[in-house]
Amino acid sequence: MSRLIALFLCVLATMALAEARIRRYKWDVKYEFKSPDCYKKLVIIINGRSPGPSILAQQSDVVVVEVTNGLVTENLAIHWHGIRQIGSPWSDGTEGVTQCPIFPGDTFTYRFVVDRPGTYLYHAHYGMQRAAGLYGSIQVSLPDGMAEPFAYDYDKSIILNDWYHKSTYEQAAGLSSIPFGWVGEPQSLLIQGRGKFNCSKLASPTLDPTACNATSSECLPYVLTVIPGKTYRLRISSMTALSALSFQIEGHNMTIVEADGHYVEPVVAQNLFIYSGETYSVLIKIDQEPSRNYWIMTNIVSRNATATTPPGLRVPPTGPPAGPIWNDVAPRLAQSLAIKARQGYIHTPPPKSDRAIVFLNTQNKIDGYFHWSVNNVSFTLPHTPYLIALKENLHHVFDQSPPPDRLRDFTNYDIYRVANNTNATSSNAIYRLKFNTTVDIILQNANTLTANTSETHPWHLHGHDFWVLGYGTGKFDADNDPKKYNLVNPIKKNTVAVHPYGWTALRFVADNPGVWVFHCHIEPHLYMGMGVVFEEGVERVGKLPSEIMGCGETKGFKRP
Amino acid sequence: MSRLIALFLCVLATMALAEARIRRYKWDVKYEFKSPDCYKKLVIIINGRSPGPSILAQQSDVVVVEVTNGLVTENLAIHWHGIRQIGSPWSDGTEGVTQCPIFPGDTFTYRFVVDRPGTYLYHAHYGMQRAAGLYGSIQVSLPDGMAEPFAYDYDKSIILNDWYHKSTYEQAAGLSSIPFGWVGEPQSLLIQGRGKFNCSKLASPTLDPTACNATSSECLPYVLTVIPGKTYRLRISSMTALSALSFQIEGHNMTIVEADGHYVEPVVAQNLFIYSGETYSVLIKIDQEPSRNYWIMTNIVSRNATATTPPGLRVPPTGPPAGPIWNDVAPRLAQSLAIKARQGYIHTPPPKSDRAIVFLNTQNKIDGYFHWSVNNVSFTLPHTPYLIALKENLHHVFDQSPPPDRLRDFTNYDIYRVANNTNATSSNAIYRLKFNTTVDIILQNANTLTANTSETHPWHLHGHDFWVLGYGTGKFDADNDPKKYNLVNPIKKNTVAVHPYGWTALRFVADNPGVWVFHCHIEPHLYMGMGVVFEEGVERVGKLPSEIMGCGETKGFKRP
Repeated sequence: MSRLIALFLCVLATMALAEARIRRYKWDVKYEFKSPDCYKKLVIIINGRSPGPSILAQQSDVVVVEVTNGLVTENLAIHWHGIRQIGSPWSDGTEGVTQCPIFPGDTFTYRFVVDRPGTYLYHAHYGMQRAAGLYGSIQVSLPDGMAEPFAYDYDKSIILNDWYHKSTYEQAAGLSSIPFGWVGEPQSLLIQGRGKFNCSKLASPTLDPTACNATSSECLPYVLTVIPGKTYRLRISSMTALSALSFQIEGHNMTIVEADGHYVEPVVAQNLFIYSGETYSVLIKIDQEPSRNYWIMTNIVSRNATATTPPGLRVPPTGPPAGPIWNDVAPRLAQSLAIKARQGYIHTPPPKSDRAIVFLNTQNKIDGYFHWSVNNVSFTLPHTPYLIALKENLHHVFDQSPPPDRLRDFTNYDIYRVANNTNATSSNAIYRLKFNTTVDIILQNANTLTANTSETHPWHLHGHDFWVLGYGTGKFDADNDPKKYNLVNPIKKNTVAVHPYGWTALRFVADNPGVWVFHCHIEPHLYMGMGVVFEEGVERVGKLPSEIMGCGETKGFKRP
Repeated sequence: MSRLIALFLCVLATMALAEARIRRYKWDVKYEFKSPDCYKKLVIIINGRSPGPSILAQQSDVVVVEVTNGLVTENLAIHWHGIRQIGSPWSDGTEGVTQCPIFPGDTFTYRFVVDRPGTYLYHAHYGMQRAAGLYGSIQVSLPDGMAEPFAYDYDKSIILNDWYHKSTYEQAAGLSSIPFGWVGEPQSLLIQGRGKFNCSKLASPTLDPTACNATSSECLPYVLTVIPGKTYRLRISSMTALSALSFQIEGHNMTIVEADGHYVEPVVAQNLFIYSGETYSVLIKIDQEPSRNYWIMTNIVSRNATATTPPGLRVPPTGPPAGPIWNDVAPRLAQSLAIKARQGYIHTPPPKSDRAIVFLNTQNKIDGYFHWSVNNVSFTLPHTPYLIALKENLHHVFDQSPPPDRLRDFTNYDIYRVANNTNATSSNAIYRLKFNTTVDIILQNANTLTANTSETHPWHLHGHDFWVLGYGTGKFDADNDPKKYNLVNPIKKNTVAVHPYGWTALRFVADNPGVWVFHCHIEPHLYMGMGVVFEEGVERVGKLPSEIMGCGETKGFKRP
């Protein structure tokens, strides 16, 4: 009798395991008029929504997303931000790098393993499509029976975004125009897809009386209803096109416990500084006077902008709390420095690197057009994706001579002045990394083409997490700064900021066969060339699925 | 000695002939901000211009156009309107019918013979892209030594257009939304790409002070400088998205001498009524007082709209002449009836047809969405082009059961009332015509979903000219109306109007192997389903170029 029971339990367990293994999603992508900040504009939606549906999975699950492109004349690609795509480099969703775009009417199936718990994102990775509203959250839970190293009662995800009223077409055309048309500061900040533009700022009378509707249910403020005494885990992530943000909850401290899917040695903060492409988990204890409401606020930092998220209903009794001073870098650098791997969850980096690459971040003018560049090379995408080109030996589809590991005269480069980078070029050349070697990247910030200006750039690496070994102010000193690297408990991340006039040092092991883009996560900066591509172990990549082909030189590539 | 001279002359003649045979164009297509009516918006331009470069060729020339798609995320296709594509059905440029769209970064080469003299057009034929500004003129001259049957001193081309400030993305999304978002009347009318929107109509202050600039050189009025006593041939064509137009030159009569590439028995007119997709040549004699200027005016007819083309510089001393009464169908029907083939250039139609198809034009609601339909079938495009599907026997990519040759209860259909067309469907089924048979098409207009409303629809046939056998008011009488067909000197055209509550009868011979779309040339009407597709002799079509493939089920079709 006892044996029968054991068998029965065993079958149940197997079934539960089997059920957990594949998470299937069917997504229809199209344009629709939405009013996320009360102002009506075309938004790219997934199954009717922006942000799109959240992907909820458990560690080791296979996520299968069938994406149907219903955009009429426009192609599509979706990137799974923070998912390393180990064994599935063709599912990274970066147009021009790992796949051809999905053509109108086509259905493309992304299939990948979520191998680690944590908070991740997805978003369009084609042109400037991300800023049109195609983004969402991925939350991966621990295996059954395993627990986080912190306790909480409820788990909520909040994606922050900035929002523009101009279409991404208009934004992109402006960026590649003479005279240059900058996207400007956003009209609104969105919290979980909701913001509030002040309709009275619009010219009146507008041609379309429904263009801005302050009472639209779509722009009701985001409200988090909480239970006194409970602890909430808030998964805060940023999908901004441009803005660096500060996030705060009036009267409540936050304890940062996770960053980009890695546990953080707890840091208590009043403001969470968060850059585009980053995800954090913070814990908040509902320990304040329960008879009133409190502000959930985002503010722009690092740029002198005014957009915030004004309230709608249920206004708190106090005015909104002031955000940090926009151009005070010190508290932001302090937070960056405070984020370390949590004790007991430290992955120690290799003590030395095999190759160190210094990426000088500059703004340039090439043929009269504004660009962003790395070592005076502005990145452009080929129309034949690198992954296919490399596997199929299509050498002619991109520049075969590698870009430099550092600027030739980096030693004499003055990062504090407007440089005369007249030798800047555009190129689709890539960095080829020796498989399994350890690579250091030093992101070096500098002055832009405007005097006394250096911007914040959040750099995001595909296919990897990197260790954040250090941050510094001023120019990187290759002799002395590496001695100060944190090799004890550095956090691993996939997105990291380089602060104005500063440097950030990263280390990763080139152990994931594929082709991976590393780029500033500011949408117009990437569009203007602020990125590089790494190839590693591409010879170890298995047979490519023919579904990723069909563009550029891969038209007609059909596999038996 | 005389033999040498003869040889020399002969060589020269051959060279001249050879030089005339191929007309090569290289076009780069991209988005750019333009202000054609003083209001700045994104426009699709060819080599920097909208309208694009004119194609100037001579009868029997081969036109080769290499189109490079620089639209970043959007695909592309260009149709050569009025060119029958005899022997080159894959160059017709209709996305979903004769080719896959051109993907971003790709270069596609259109190659076709211009086998007849006359005035033709080109424009985008994908989504609603045409209305974004991708259009231009094709002018084919007679062979050397041949003369037109009318005399003129100068030859000028003027394309008329209507112009919207909303993007075609916004327009298309509105049309396929619940609630329905109609494109509305245009903000301006353009003459050869120039119009004048009254900037003071814009809300003020606008967010962008450069959004409307009444003094922009891009919206200087179109000025035709003429020489007294001379005769001008004006090639007037209409590329409107929606509007039916009246065109007039103050104080000057026009003599209509060409329509859609066919010579017309001269008709003197004060107003030229012209529908989207039509081309006319008119002669004007410069016989008025030369010390002053005269208005060149377009007005909208058939819809109650207000947009006209106000003047900028050099205003004539008199106010602009009044256009015709917008809803007076009589003069428009009269012009339609007056257009006959010119004596000496009559192509007599076959006396009888093998098949008569009645296309009842209706507006419908299907699943809550507004559609336009033919015989209660609203046309949708497959993602695998018909031409390839038919040649490659891909039967599953479109509905194989043919749509009806007439509405089942057409006899009892009341064209004067709002019909309860609850049985309307969407379909991508096509009409298969027996090769070399003679086909009659009766376009039957009817009431829309709005009481007491019937619109004007200009129908355009690809791959053919048709004879216009007759027009009538009210419901077509299959027993008696055909007896009144003009079989003596009917004009041949590729675009013809069906007037409100009226019918138009056409005849053509299905002798051009290929797949040809026949549709209302109003861009939102086609987008909403107002079209059909004919297949004829597809088994005679030669090997398809693999360049037209790569979408839908033809991904991976590569020919050796």
